[in-house]
Amino acid sequence: MSDILLRNLRPMGGPVVDMRVQDGRITAIAPALATDGLPVEDCAGAIGVSGLVEAHTHLDKTLMGMGWYANAVGTDLHSMIDNERTERHRLGLDPHRQSMRHALALVAAGCTHIRTHVDIDTDHGLAMLDGVLATRAALAQEVMIEIVAFPQSGLLVRPGTLELLDHALAQGADLVGGLDPAGMDRDPKGHLDAVFALAEKHCKGVDIHLHEAGTLGAFSLELIMDRTRALGMQGKVAVSHAFCLGMNDWHATEALIEELAACDIAILTTGAPSREVPQVKRLRAAGVRLGAGCDGVRDTWSPLNRADMIDRARIIAMRNNLRSDTDLAMALDICSTGGAQVMGLQGYGLDVGCAADLTLLAGETLAEAALSDAPRPLVLKSGRITARAGKSMREAP
Amino acid sequence: MSDILLRNLRPMGGPVVDMRVQDGRITAIAPALATDGLPVEDCAGAIGVSGLVEAHTHLDKTLMGMGWYANAVGTDLHSMIDNERTERHRLGLDPHRQSMRHALALVAAGCTHIRTHVDIDTDHGLAMLDGVLATRAALAQEVMIEIVAFPQSGLLVRPGTLELLDHALAQGADLVGGLDPAGMDRDPKGHLDAVFALAEKHCKGVDIHLHEAGTLGAFSLELIMDRTRALGMQGKVAVSHAFCLGMNDWHATEALIEELAACDIAILTTGAPSREVPQVKRLRAAGVRLGAGCDGVRDTWSPLNRADMIDRARIIAMRNNLRSDTDLAMALDICSTGGAQVMGLQGYGLDVGCAADLTLLAGETLAEAALSDAPRPLVLKSGRITARAGKSMREAP
Repeated sequence: MSDILLRNLRPMGGPVVDMRVQDGRITAIAPALATDGLPVEDCAGAIGVSGLVEAHTHLDKTLMGMGWYANAVGTDLHSMIDNERTERHRLGLDPHRQSMRHALALVAAGCTHIRTHVDIDTDHGLAMLDGVLATRAALAQEVMIEIVAFPQSGLLVRPGTLELLDHALAQGADLVGGLDPAGMDRDPKGHLDAVFALAEKHCKGVDIHLHEAGTLGAFSLELIMDRTRALGMQGKVAVSHAFCLGMNDWHATEALIEELAACDIAILTTGAPSREVPQVKRLRAAGVRLGAGCDGVRDTWSPLNRADMIDRARIIAMRNNLRSDTDLAMALDICSTGGAQVMGLQGYGLDVGCAADLTLLAGETLAEAALSDAPRPLVLKSGRITARAGKSMREAP
Repeated sequence: MSDILLRNLRPMGGPVVDMRVQDGRITAIAPALATDGLPVEDCAGAIGVSGLVEAHTHLDKTLMGMGWYANAVGTDLHSMIDNERTERHRLGLDPHRQSMRHALALVAAGCTHIRTHVDIDTDHGLAMLDGVLATRAALAQEVMIEIVAFPQSGLLVRPGTLELLDHALAQGADLVGGLDPAGMDRDPKGHLDAVFALAEKHCKGVDIHLHEAGTLGAFSLELIMDRTRALGMQGKVAVSHAFCLGMNDWHATEALIEELAACDIAILTTGAPSREVPQVKRLRAAGVRLGAGCDGVRDTWSPLNRADMIDRARIIAMRNNLRSDTDLAMALDICSTGGAQVMGLQGYGLDVGCAADLTLLAGETLAEAALSDAPRPLVLKSGRITARAGKSMREAP
């Protein structure tokens, strides 16, 4: 928690004002505020937005800083999953060191909150979770990290995984993960019953990877909605990817979206350009909470993603054909406020009383800022400066 | 034309060698070449690739350096076209100055060759062409610019346009352009007959924008192939975008691709993430010449694109799900050699005897270089240094 006076800031691209931060919270926003003995930071007219929220990533997977990983794997899901499990051993991936690198790269790029999935499987047990928990503790003052215990290699098909997930939730994971109930476990009912039973037992939320496309994905989504309603878990469930919502059947998709809104199930998108994806304007219009993430960054899956929610805003804009200033502001909002809504963050925003979690962005207007790949001039977490000129204050290991 | 000795270069990511350039051509590639009195440039082990080729853009449209353009236009083609014609006047867009800025940004990013479409319409006459011709002359030593006379606002629907295109070709445009024969002119036969008649009259090639999707685009494509065969224009025709090749009908698409290969018609793609696009691996496997472009950059249409073929290689990789090192090298190849093949460039490449058109890229491997957004260390056009550390040697106006 820190005290600071930000001078010459343009919140959300509006007029230049000052912002006073005390005990980590915004206490005043107005032109020409008195210094009152606070340390002063001149923002030089930069745009300020509430902290970026990376709401779908995998901190335990990145190979950042380990040299180039030559990828010769196929692009089917099972090949990539099996390859990764083997390669983790061969490459000697240290989950604490790697998640520190990834999380600090996100901080440098303006993030104040992260939801990460962490692999739990019978080959590696809870080693990935232990590493990411250590990172969460080490970076408690830099970035809030929420952890999903994620059965990446399947749940029912790998006996012992369920028990590991149970342990992971007891040891500090915040949500139960799941993955393609039909495609991975070949048993959608069994997979989802297990996931929701864990959530109920530990009173925790759910975030399920759903790559299944078309009517298969729609069926899995219906089963997720059934369980959300039956357990009264409205507002506590998210579905990541949800490629089925991009299927070419307007009426079927409309029915799914309306039902998602009624169940208050959130959607997390990466705007994956090679897949059918949910149309973000359609989800927003229906009132579905919608966040975004960069997914895995420089891992055994792919080198295409970057740890930068501004880069992701552009990808989402490109995938959804968002071009106008209004639409580009929406893309940025999905990568900040949208993620905060999915994570259920309290006191998030740029209003008086909110936590002083914010990033400066280069640009003349909010739309330009949403697309600018320039280094972030300054990032604050609870009023503490966590990054400056595109570099995190804390050095990555 | 320049002489230079490049030391410690890794052509295409291979072993470190030296490269001797004399009279603008590569005369030797080997380790530890004698200096022979040539000026020496140390490449410090950077990867060298043949010059990047921007094969589909619009140098006359950019608003670079003119402040942020607040876009409030719809995303349908006609709205965007009409808006641009009006806004050119209101904004006082200077086609020479703007095309200089755009072309030099491409040079800074490693480009040595550009194919640009230039709007020809009855509102602006040949003003855009004059501006871009002036830029071509001014930058003759920096970058080769090929010009397509492009009826952006329609051809038959705007009487007088045909005559203007005729003048444009007489005054130095290299190819005849066209645009959505059904969608714009509402007369696919009439539009294409006019385009190909101009090409025949001036003995010039053709490059047609085809946004038409599905079976309508397939029909227009068939009409283009008919005329290519009838006039013996195999090897001289290109189709830009060709979204119809991304349609969800495997057999119909396969037949079109085979016929494209038989007619030696080239395809130019931007990998547009919001549209169905041709699958690049499929086209390459069929032997279709395939280049790429960034399309318009920071114009009244959209602020999403950048003047950078390395950025474009990543977008094409994302849209086509290219992840392996082999596939990423292909994405880079499409953005260099592929474009050169479409433009029919002679003496292009990194072999002895080729023109010394090349760019250095940051990265450990070719795949990493294909995705690295780091500034290009050095760019050469005919052996002359045109850019260094991401900045063009010539300053933009």
